[in-house]
Amino acid sequence: MTAPLITLLSDFGLKDPYVAEMKAVILTICQNARIIDISHMIEEFNVRMGAFVLASATPYFPEGAIHVAVVDPGVGTKRRALLVQTNRAFYIGPDNGVLMLAAKKNQIRHVFTLSNPEFMLPRMSATFHGRDVFAPAAAYLANGVNPNKFGPETKDYEVPSFAHPELRAKGLAGEVLHIDNFGNVITNVSIDDLKKTGTKAGERLVIDHKNQSHSANLFTAYGNAEPGSLLALIGSHGFLEIAVNQGNASRKLRMKTGDALIIRAV
Amino acid sequence: MTAPLITLLSDFGLKDPYVAEMKAVILTICQNARIIDISHMIEEFNVRMGAFVLASATPYFPEGAIHVAVVDPGVGTKRRALLVQTNRAFYIGPDNGVLMLAAKKNQIRHVFTLSNPEFMLPRMSATFHGRDVFAPAAAYLANGVNPNKFGPETKDYEVPSFAHPELRAKGLAGEVLHIDNFGNVITNVSIDDLKKTGTKAGERLVIDHKNQSHSANLFTAYGNAEPGSLLALIGSHGFLEIAVNQGNASRKLRMKTGDALIIRAV
Amino acid sequence: MTAPLITLLSDFGLKDPYVAEMKAVILTICQNARIIDISHMIEEFNVRMGAFVLASATPYFPEGAIHVAVVDPGVGTKRRALLVQTNRAFYIGPDNGVLMLAAKKNQIRHVFTLSNPEFMLPRMSATFHGRDVFAPAAAYLANGVNPNKFGPETKDYEVPSFAHPELRAKGLAGEVLHIDNFGNVITNVSIDDLKKTGTKAGERLVIDHKNQSHSANLFTAYGNAEPGSLLALIGSHGFLEIAVNQGNASRKLRMKTGDALIIRAV
Repeated sequence: MTAPLITLLSDFGLKDPYVAEMKAVILTICQNARIIDISHMIEEFNVRMGAFVLASATPYFPEGAIHVAVVDPGVGTKRRALLVQTNRAFYIGPDNGVLMLAAKKNQIRHVFTLSNPEFMLPRMSATFHGRDVFAPAAAYLANGVNPNKFGPETKDYEVPSFAHPELRAKGLAGEVLHIDNFGNVITNVSIDDLKKTGTKAGERLVIDHKNQSHSANLFTAYGNAEPGSLLALIGSHGFLEIAVNQGNASRKLRMKTGDALIIRAV
Repeated sequence: MTAPLITLLSDFGLKDPYVAEMKAVILTICQNARIIDISHMIEEFNVRMGAFVLASATPYFPEGAIHVAVVDPGVGTKRRALLVQTNRAFYIGPDNGVLMLAAKKNQIRHVFTLSNPEFMLPRMSATFHGRDVFAPAAAYLANGVNPNKFGPETKDYEVPSFAHPELRAKGLAGEVLHIDNFGNVITNVSIDDLKKTGTKAGERLVIDHKNQSHSANLFTAYGNAEPGSLLALIGSHGFLEIAVNQGNASRKLRMKTGDALIIRAV
Repeated sequence: MTAPLITLLSDFGLKDPYVAEMKAVILTICQNARIIDISHMIEEFNVRMGAFVLASATPYFPEGAIHVAVVDPGVGTKRRALLVQTNRAFYIGPDNGVLMLAAKKNQIRHVFTLSNPEFMLPRMSATFHGRDVFAPAAAYLANGVNPNKFGPETKDYEVPSFAHPELRAKGLAGEVLHIDNFGNVITNVSIDDLKKTGTKAGERLVIDHKNQSHSANLFTAYGNAEPGSLLALIGSHGFLEIAVNQGNASRKLRMKTGDALIIRAV
């Protein structure tokens, strides 16, 4: 039998003791857990960025993995804690949408609220449910506790409504979903959406952003453009990406997460 | 038998090869060690911050864990290297106080100086004892070497004297212990200290800092305050914390580690 | 039998899903792999810095380790993907020199191009070979696949030609190889090179940089100099380092990676 796999995502950063405390709690309850960090550099309180990163990474993990995501501005208030069981994996975290973009990529079987104190730390803080609620839940689940022991099933969990691109007279109206470490601008425009604009690989497209229009070739790799020049491509998660070969598109075009874009053929 | 657990804390940051070299040395000596990072983003040379983060995280780890902490401005000088055995865990690092805030949370059994070259790397640098002295010590200890083989016992190790809050005419005189990733200002005022000021949950308290006075409600969760507004609470490690719901208190109040504060009832 | 050891180095940073996706792919193919991060904070596209950090860290890992390094500005273009087998370890990454500084520290047995699609992800992107090519190759290799199954052997791989110091009339001409987290300036001048200048431990040397000359004592430890004052020493990887005790030499002297230096006796 393989050791259970637990992944962690948060906006805790890496200088504080918080991430280590979650791991310590997990390893105290489930000695043989394998723990993998997805990211702890999610922007503070940015549920949307957490949801995007979680949904990007978790499809690559083996079946049965337990994914814990803590971007949790409502900690200690009435917001509920969830355990989501899909046909492929488990998701644990606050009921604010951070789990659902990832969970909905598969078939959701059950959503339980985490309310059974038997599976929380005995001395619970009102400020750090990552350590006191979510980490122990993941570890007990890894130990084989039945998901339905953690609390009652619920149907009215929050699902994030990140805008889907919309075909308008001017072009395809989308938005910036994420800026990555290289300054690549990742949009919510999928390859299927893009086809609606009539743009094909190798052709030019135009991106309207605020009062400016940028044109870029639709390439397949960053290195197809000259170093320093703008390009577009379908990125490694299947979304339209605006990039500068060996440069930083976000900085060059002053685009940031949430910005509205119109994508159109030349 | 469970695989031994070794944790690492340092001010090395994450871009250099230093942390990986410590892990490589450990895994060469003790193949089945499980290694967990507590933090490598301790401010350079900031022994106090290292001590605080170590003391916060290590109580959550399983018994018998081996904690290595390297914030070591005196590396290569006469400062000694220590192995501290408590009734719960082991602490390995320089004799500058970084270990002792954590170690003193339990009963200290023995403190040994690391001086036996048999348990160091054969080619030892004068600048990187994390790799050449502390990592091998942790790995040999994990392999079952008796703590008293590493060097003679000592009694005159350094203990940090981070100021304890003091009740004065004006109020409770404390100080800022740590600023976390969210800009929460963590003070050295415990819940018991706070009771001395007569402030109760739900009431307002005043924080005097430099020439300014700030008043805040004592809540139990960040989300109890309006987004953007100041609050106080007892944080997840039992200390008074000054925070802004979904904001950054350190930036808003210009407070930093070491700043003196007076806490008083309204 | 010990679980196989795979290390990862990249310029991906830690906020995005990229590193986790590589780990997920590895653990899907090779369940019992132990994965250690060397660094993901390599400056974007900086092959030279990646090569330096990889070559510094990998000698400390156990024999048989599989090292994956992805600093890959040419991803998706004609640049090839390599699997390098030395007498001590395996190196996997793009054919741009990032692997070779490390690999050449041992005897190179074979260099294979990664071209067999059987050992890549079935749906391959043109932008993320770390996940789609290099991670699966490492995992299949860890599973025991023979290196010669991944593709044909090659002899004409790229080898980086980071300048070797040169003895001139003015002194020893070297350059800055790396700036570490503490602002220590690590040069390409080895202890043997330094002997050619006639400088001995405890003596002063002069560093000419741009239009300035700095003199510093050659010490063995940072703490041998007064706090805040300049010193030189042979660092933990055997290269001449310019440092400020408990300070930041790179900032103080405005030195950065690639800068030319002349080192000479007083």
